[in-house]
Amino acid sequence: MSDYSANRTGSADAGVTSPAAGKVALVGAGPGDPDLLTIKAARLIAAAEVVFADRLVGKGVMDLISPGAQVVNVGKSKGEHSVQQDEIHHRMIAAAKAGKRVVRLKGGDPFIFGRGGEEVEALRAAGIDVEVVPGISAALGVAAATQIPLTHREAAQAVTFVTGHAALGKAPDLDWVALARPNQTVVVYMGVGTADVIAARLIAAGRDPATPVAIIENGTRQNEVRAFGALGNITEAIQAAGIQGPALLVIGEVVALAQREAGAAVAAKSGKTKPTLGSLWEMLS
Amino acid sequence: MSDYSANRTGSADAGVTSPAAGKVALVGAGPGDPDLLTIKAARLIAAAEVVFADRLVGKGVMDLISPGAQVVNVGKSKGEHSVQQDEIHHRMIAAAKAGKRVVRLKGGDPFIFGRGGEEVEALRAAGIDVEVVPGISAALGVAAATQIPLTHREAAQAVTFVTGHAALGKAPDLDWVALARPNQTVVVYMGVGTADVIAARLIAAGRDPATPVAIIENGTRQNEVRAFGALGNITEAIQAAGIQGPALLVIGEVVALAQREAGAAVAAKSGKTKPTLGSLWEMLS
Repeated sequence: MSDYSANRTGSADAGVTSPAAGKVALVGAGPGDPDLLTIKAARLIAAAEVVFADRLVGKGVMDLISPGAQVVNVGKSKGEHSVQQDEIHHRMIAAAKAGKRVVRLKGGDPFIFGRGGEEVEALRAAGIDVEVVPGISAALGVAAATQIPLTHREAAQAVTFVTGHAALGKAPDLDWVALARPNQTVVVYMGVGTADVIAARLIAAGRDPATPVAIIENGTRQNEVRAFGALGNITEAIQAAGIQGPALLVIGEVVALAQREAGAAVAAKSGKTKPTLGSLWEMLS
Repeated sequence: MSDYSANRTGSADAGVTSPAAGKVALVGAGPGDPDLLTIKAARLIAAAEVVFADRLVGKGVMDLISPGAQVVNVGKSKGEHSVQQDEIHHRMIAAAKAGKRVVRLKGGDPFIFGRGGEEVEALRAAGIDVEVVPGISAALGVAAATQIPLTHREAAQAVTFVTGHAALGKAPDLDWVALARPNQTVVVYMGVGTADVIAARLIAAGRDPATPVAIIENGTRQNEVRAFGALGNITEAIQAAGIQGPALLVIGEVVALAQREAGAAVAAKSGKTKPTLGSLWEMLS
């Protein structure tokens, strides 16, 4: 119980240098709109020599990759996660050991349902220097676009992110009693396929069927779809909107505060110049 | 129960125009490092005519504000939140009605413990057009910098954000039983002042005293301090590191995966050009 430690980075040893081998940056690509990349992410993507990109990374983000870079699409199919994950590790390690500047581009944030932790562990174990660059996770991007405050002094004192992913026909393994309490926001990633089960379990555990829900597909992208309903009719709301997923479920009293119609921000966006490298300086000056 | 609706933004009415009055953008300033601003945030900050900025917004971010802009510091003192919050609303509304391009600059993300929801409600009620730009919330910024995956297939199937803020001498009003379950990550914002109470309550509710914790002050900034310990010795860890707060507590099995020493990323940063407007193009090309 006396194992605690501290480190003041202000006095970090600046003499530590990168190893000769290449380095891997796990970079959050955000929810889709390239305008929501961090400045650091945009710079690293543009400078990368090899990019391992998730299938869900938006096209506008992919457009920032240098034409000379090697792009490896690591689109995962359901059911073969473990095999492919190992292969991603091996290929990243090989590219880094070949001295390349490697970017691992992950949708949203690398550390929220992105298996980024496993990739960091694998890279570290192979002696590769890793840097992690955060991204706007889908929950944050969708909340801002839809104007749903994830926390609120009166309506939500906590926010929890869970994944709705489960084996076919099964319910995700979640703490239903905890998630059923009022005055908290629950965001379900990849929740469309199991939305009916999730809603039924939450209601059975005591959450009010009238609790408002939002279902957002392709959040922050040009083809975004927003649907609204209540926990008790979530399946009808998803079907009426024709949402197939991947999409995000936002469950909680705060959803009542949402801007239901696509606002001026989205309408104005359609005529906007995309933030390509060539236009970035212009936009910022 | 039949109240559900959908809106495809792809077919949004592009004829909707902004009102003549100015608009307010609630912009997430991220955790401190200006490199972690979104591209959109950087552009809006640079273009703003009036900026209402939280006390916790980093200096590097403030440096992006145009020299000609009016900057209003809305540093809040404890105990007078409600009065000041109303005044912030009134002043933002007045600036927008005067036709100014107004940015409300908030630390982290506007919708995670930022009272952004209340500000959006007040602005909307006054007929002001509002846009919300997400930011890297402290939890995401700190997790990336410290290489703590907030979720992990084996170690954390959920992550919950709560606030440790409470009236002097009191415990925050949290769902201790829910937060005490293993295999989930709990991030406490503003948790240093009540860390001892939080740890005691979690342990009393059944969480293992050996659960690893990280306490990070000024995360992603040059003066970042990282401390590590366990739930059972959190107070000693905070004291040994000299952490005063505001700081973030990260509680959960995933903390064991952290990079304890400031890594190459931080060490390299000290010699790095700050992303001023003048250097941004250069960094990206």
